[in-house]
Amino acid sequence: MIFLCERVAVVGAGSWGTVLANVLVTNGKKVKIWSRRQNQVDELNQRHTNEAYLPHVELSKKIEASTNLEDVLLGSEVVLLAVPTKAMRTVSHEVGLLIKKMKLKVIIVHASKGLELETHKRISEIISEEVSFENVQGVVALSGPSHAEEVAKHDITLITAASSNLQAAKIIQQIFMNSYFRVYTNSDIIGVEFGAAFKNIIALGAGALDGLGYGDDAKAALMTRGLAEIARLGIALGADPLTFIGLSGVGDLIVTCTSSHSRNWRAGRQLGEGAQVVDVVNNMGMVIEGLTTVQAAYELAKEKKIEMPITEAIYRVVYQDEKMKKAISDLMTREGKSEEETFQWNTYQK
Amino acid sequence: MIFLCERVAVVGAGSWGTVLANVLVTNGKKVKIWSRRQNQVDELNQRHTNEAYLPHVELSKKIEASTNLEDVLLGSEVVLLAVPTKAMRTVSHEVGLLIKKMKLKVIIVHASKGLELETHKRISEIISEEVSFENVQGVVALSGPSHAEEVAKHDITLITAASSNLQAAKIIQQIFMNSYFRVYTNSDIIGVEFGAAFKNIIALGAGALDGLGYGDDAKAALMTRGLAEIARLGIALGADPLTFIGLSGVGDLIVTCTSSHSRNWRAGRQLGEGAQVVDVVNNMGMVIEGLTTVQAAYELAKEKKIEMPITEAIYRVVYQDEKMKKAISDLMTREGKSEEETFQWNTYQK
Repeated sequence: MIFLCERVAVVGAGSWGTVLANVLVTNGKKVKIWSRRQNQVDELNQRHTNEAYLPHVELSKKIEASTNLEDVLLGSEVVLLAVPTKAMRTVSHEVGLLIKKMKLKVIIVHASKGLELETHKRISEIISEEVSFENVQGVVALSGPSHAEEVAKHDITLITAASSNLQAAKIIQQIFMNSYFRVYTNSDIIGVEFGAAFKNIIALGAGALDGLGYGDDAKAALMTRGLAEIARLGIALGADPLTFIGLSGVGDLIVTCTSSHSRNWRAGRQLGEGAQVVDVVNNMGMVIEGLTTVQAAYELAKEKKIEMPITEAIYRVVYQDEKMKKAISDLMTREGKSEEETFQWNTYQK
Repeated sequence: MIFLCERVAVVGAGSWGTVLANVLVTNGKKVKIWSRRQNQVDELNQRHTNEAYLPHVELSKKIEASTNLEDVLLGSEVVLLAVPTKAMRTVSHEVGLLIKKMKLKVIIVHASKGLELETHKRISEIISEEVSFENVQGVVALSGPSHAEEVAKHDITLITAASSNLQAAKIIQQIFMNSYFRVYTNSDIIGVEFGAAFKNIIALGAGALDGLGYGDDAKAALMTRGLAEIARLGIALGADPLTFIGLSGVGDLIVTCTSSHSRNWRAGRQLGEGAQVVDVVNNMGMVIEGLTTVQAAYELAKEKKIEMPITEAIYRVVYQDEKMKKAISDLMTREGKSEEETFQWNTYQK
């Protein structure tokens, strides 16, 4: 398939959308970025900054911003959706209507990490429902251990482009890849999307351990058992077990649980220090995907009869007013017998 | 099997041996600990400290220390070997001769992480060669994300007791387990021992990234790809793939690559900052197992035709005078195509 991509529409001007737009412009693509907010659009066009989301970062002058979605989509071959999970269906719907009207045929790539609250659907499922297949060459998830702040500084980042359409994943790899942003393809979008979403739950737990003053041993143990439990659920939902030991699995889990850039870890730490959930949500001022994903994972685990002790503990804290201190203490002193039992993977192998 | 263990002999009074002796005494066992050094034995018996290895830690007054190995072994049902890998054959041989003479039948548990340099043998293989099977009820490896300093403070630690004799592993679980030291059994001692040894190589690389100023994204990526490569080699050598996502695999990898307690990580950081290998060895003043394990892993990988780019890079730095900066830079900008290719696990499944 020959696919010369010249023009990319970036929908969403948060930290990640903005940084990815900057990567694409650096790679020679023409990029327009959409935001609903006029003042943000003006700042991007005139000062070439996005201080609210990426403080102290100078962006390329070639990024054009607009509040007009149709204008942003015009002539694009690739559409990057970089909006919070809860906005994904509305935004996909708007994009779908416009590209139908404009008779475009695009690859849609998304960079969001979460599940739809009511339906428990993955992001690529939402997109596929809202955008007509006639207008889409493939849906790709871009995921992995990646902080916008580090990509902005050209620190080296390795990331996964996943799609059931491997050709589409390769095109996304080709347009994003450069010396500091290294893209690997993966055909298991199910595993990549579940890993990306569920790892935020474990990050809340890891942050809570830090907030409660536990040590490095306890945190490594929680991350290990966290990986096992999210893999168990993912596999029951159709993911490939190996994906959980890749960049979007253990890689993203590590960075999210150990980096102070991670907002889910920071939220968890505040909960560990004794803060109330409502106060954490208010004072973070950003979306904390883990707080909603934990509900989706909790319900999916019940449905599939998968044991997820960490997810259950975090769920009780967020939705049933249990104290984090008690939840974590109960968790860390559970009776365990054999490690093999805790994997229980074979049962769920496809 | 009824096995009432009253008395444990701890051979080796480094930080880990000392802390494990303290755990056992806390659990009500009678413990004698052996060291070659009279001044260390006197300090343990009189001041109940081991300042050179465990600064500022007050040990139980019930730990008895001796330079007389026969005296330490007398009446023991369990022998814990906690000496550096390079001393393991000599010490096992001495222990083997004595327990033969004393007609003991013991469970031997070891807490070392490395491979024998010349033979590439695992610790339990060395022990099995040096101690007559008539005197042994089972050989168990105790491994996982565990810093002596944290166990000494009663921070919660989760650890694996692995043995092909699961009954022996259960006895070790039973005598060590308490509210802060949580022991899980595992029947794959091959995977546990290889994971424990190889992860030190990746820790050198992770430390080097930190020393060179790379960010959290790059480090998480290196750890992810490191886990994949040590698992590839381990599986080729007979390990169960699942062990690498357990406490002794990814768990130990995480703690060793991210904790400032880790001496392999600290050695790697110094190499990243531009120090010479010989200077790092001299100024650390402790055994850095990764520096020898990298040679064993490098040779095993050649023999089994397993691609191990991180191991090869570290090997070139340690044994072929390559600069760490160049080795890491080459590594992080390698051409990668698909994530699935980097796993290559299926090829080596048992």
